[in-house]
Amino acid sequence: MDNKDIFVQGFKASSIAAGLKKNKAADMALIYSERETVAAGVFTTNRVKAAPVLLSMEHLLTGKARAIIANAGNANACTGAEGIKNAGLTAEVTARELGIKQEEVLIASTGVIGAQMDMVKVTEAIPGLVKGLSEDNIPLAAEAIMTTDSFPKISLFEGKAGGSPYRILGIAKGAGMIMPNMATMLSFIMTDINIESGPLKKALSYSVERSFNRITVDGDTSTNDTVFILANGMAGNHQLNAEGYEGFTNGLQKVMNELATMIVKDGEGATKLVFINLKGAASEKDAMTAARNVANSYLVKTAFYGQDANWGRIIAALGRSGISMEEKEISVCIDDIKIVAGGMGTGADREKIAAERMKNRSFSVNIDLNMGDHEYNVTTCDLTHEYVSINANYRT
Amino acid sequence: MDNKDIFVQGFKASSIAAGLKKNKAADMALIYSERETVAAGVFTTNRVKAAPVLLSMEHLLTGKARAIIANAGNANACTGAEGIKNAGLTAEVTARELGIKQEEVLIASTGVIGAQMDMVKVTEAIPGLVKGLSEDNIPLAAEAIMTTDSFPKISLFEGKAGGSPYRILGIAKGAGMIMPNMATMLSFIMTDINIESGPLKKALSYSVERSFNRITVDGDTSTNDTVFILANGMAGNHQLNAEGYEGFTNGLQKVMNELATMIVKDGEGATKLVFINLKGAASEKDAMTAARNVANSYLVKTAFYGQDANWGRIIAALGRSGISMEEKEISVCIDDIKIVAGGMGTGADREKIAAERMKNRSFSVNIDLNMGDHEYNVTTCDLTHEYVSINANYRT
Repeated sequence: MDNKDIFVQGFKASSIAAGLKKNKAADMALIYSERETVAAGVFTTNRVKAAPVLLSMEHLLTGKARAIIANAGNANACTGAEGIKNAGLTAEVTARELGIKQEEVLIASTGVIGAQMDMVKVTEAIPGLVKGLSEDNIPLAAEAIMTTDSFPKISLFEGKAGGSPYRILGIAKGAGMIMPNMATMLSFIMTDINIESGPLKKALSYSVERSFNRITVDGDTSTNDTVFILANGMAGNHQLNAEGYEGFTNGLQKVMNELATMIVKDGEGATKLVFINLKGAASEKDAMTAARNVANSYLVKTAFYGQDANWGRIIAALGRSGISMEEKEISVCIDDIKIVAGGMGTGADREKIAAERMKNRSFSVNIDLNMGDHEYNVTTCDLTHEYVSINANYRT
Repeated sequence: MDNKDIFVQGFKASSIAAGLKKNKAADMALIYSERETVAAGVFTTNRVKAAPVLLSMEHLLTGKARAIIANAGNANACTGAEGIKNAGLTAEVTARELGIKQEEVLIASTGVIGAQMDMVKVTEAIPGLVKGLSEDNIPLAAEAIMTTDSFPKISLFEGKAGGSPYRILGIAKGAGMIMPNMATMLSFIMTDINIESGPLKKALSYSVERSFNRITVDGDTSTNDTVFILANGMAGNHQLNAEGYEGFTNGLQKVMNELATMIVKDGEGATKLVFINLKGAASEKDAMTAARNVANSYLVKTAFYGQDANWGRIIAALGRSGISMEEKEISVCIDDIKIVAGGMGTGADREKIAAERMKNRSFSVNIDLNMGDHEYNVTTCDLTHEYVSINANYRT
């Protein structure tokens, strides 16, 4: 994707180095829509919610928004009443500089937990952010929200609704603390489609459930996870019919899937991108539980790193997940190489072929429980020396 | 403890290098009681149970045993009908060589999953094991069952019941795949106390729940976890009264606690031994869930490794555990250094003092939810580069 393609009509963005990141890189981003947008959000399920999450949940009650202000470097989480006040002040200053209402500003933060925001730096940076707004600057916003990410995450979908072309453009940051429901991940989606609030929320939940909620890096769920979607209607399509809605939902899911996969690929220290596809579960809950247990097992993830087709660890992870299963019914494939049939290994030769396959940057683990018709998939990565290095040294 | 103290009257042990471990170290152990013993066992809750687990569960239906045969190097798990046959054959040959009944032999295995046992090596080793039996050789048995363990684990308790002195001697192996309910851990407890089957089972469950079920290295539960206890009655005490039972249970718990702590201390790659003490939970289930979530969090464990008093990760782990909690009620101490009060950090100075404390080999994390009266404790370790190295290279 060429940077000049990364735009959606009516949306502008900017970034600035406010000094919140130690490395002095850009650490604040602003997204602004010329017109009022229909807006929706999905937030962390962690009982401990950061101040910007609490404030944005409140602002989104209107179902409308004009801007997103985000920062990396400080999560503004576990910061008590002062944190809430600072999130409010950030929204207030942003609104004033943009000439919009405070309730029209959504806010998101990521970074270290438990430190108060440096509000001098934040408020001084906002006028510069407003001045820098441009249709071309969405890639800069994607960079500014990065923390331990090694590359910015951007995905674009172009569709048509009733003959009118529209775009869905998403940016995201991820890297660590990634786990279903959700992750230290932020994702902001901009679209010019004309859509009402109800269908927008529905499409958002549906797509999040099938994308961001199906990735894991380390099983930890952050206090700050946020997905925002803003639809400014400038595509000018008529009210969406069933077909139009389906097309939009598919497009949205595609964008989120792409972003979610990029997040795992860029998982802290990850060297492998692994698709866990589980089928044959007796219930939907079993399918999800089993797939997540395999995807989060320390031993399975270190085996991926070691390029070792150690299926015993996969079977053990299934067994401890508490689902209904019969050992002798299980089959496991690495890509199309069957390494377990009837609960037992198919031999050293096949394991060797599977291990060869695991040298690839990306492969799939296909598990069939043969207990029913339910399936679930989770995208995960390996557990590496580098993950430990990053997380043992994050603050120091 | 001097090696010459490591005995219990009537129990003999031996070890041998059968060739199941790659490094040619001793890998089979035999424990034998001159007299019939009252016996009990606790096994993995993993749905996938190794052949020796299934066989021992069957043999223990009698409540009696004379011998334990164990090997390290091959887990005999996920080995189907042939695995069951091989476990049976191992018990059969052991019984024949000892001149006892097959049902009197308990069996335990640990090592690689999914490979068939080399029964030529196993059966050829058994006569040598029988020949080597001696009261002095229990330390050798403790060494033979080691896998990635760096030291043998032995604990002794001496008590009195109704004036008669008795001993409880336990050996264990652990290292990786350690998680409540239980772990790739084997533990064999020998005692000469005179106790009936009912009280023995009760004391065993009680003590396992408060020791081996409260440790974690990596959240994985193995297919082979086994605790056996054999009581040969040679202490000659009369039937246990309430006081005698309580003394025995306390002694047993002490032995198991000591072994459990050694297992975490020797956790794969561990450099820190960390006691998570959680109190103030609204329910018993909440207390357990919260403590285990903190103890198993990748991010918390890497922060321990980094000697970083990163309490935000602890709060985030509590928050995602789904328990009832109020952020503003939480306090967290490292040993006696309070780093979180009212859900917020107490400042950089205290964090620095706490971080100093975390340079110790061992420290505690004391969490108060202030929501009720329930508490739970879990012993855990840090997640290190060495853990990744060990587990990425285990089979290769």
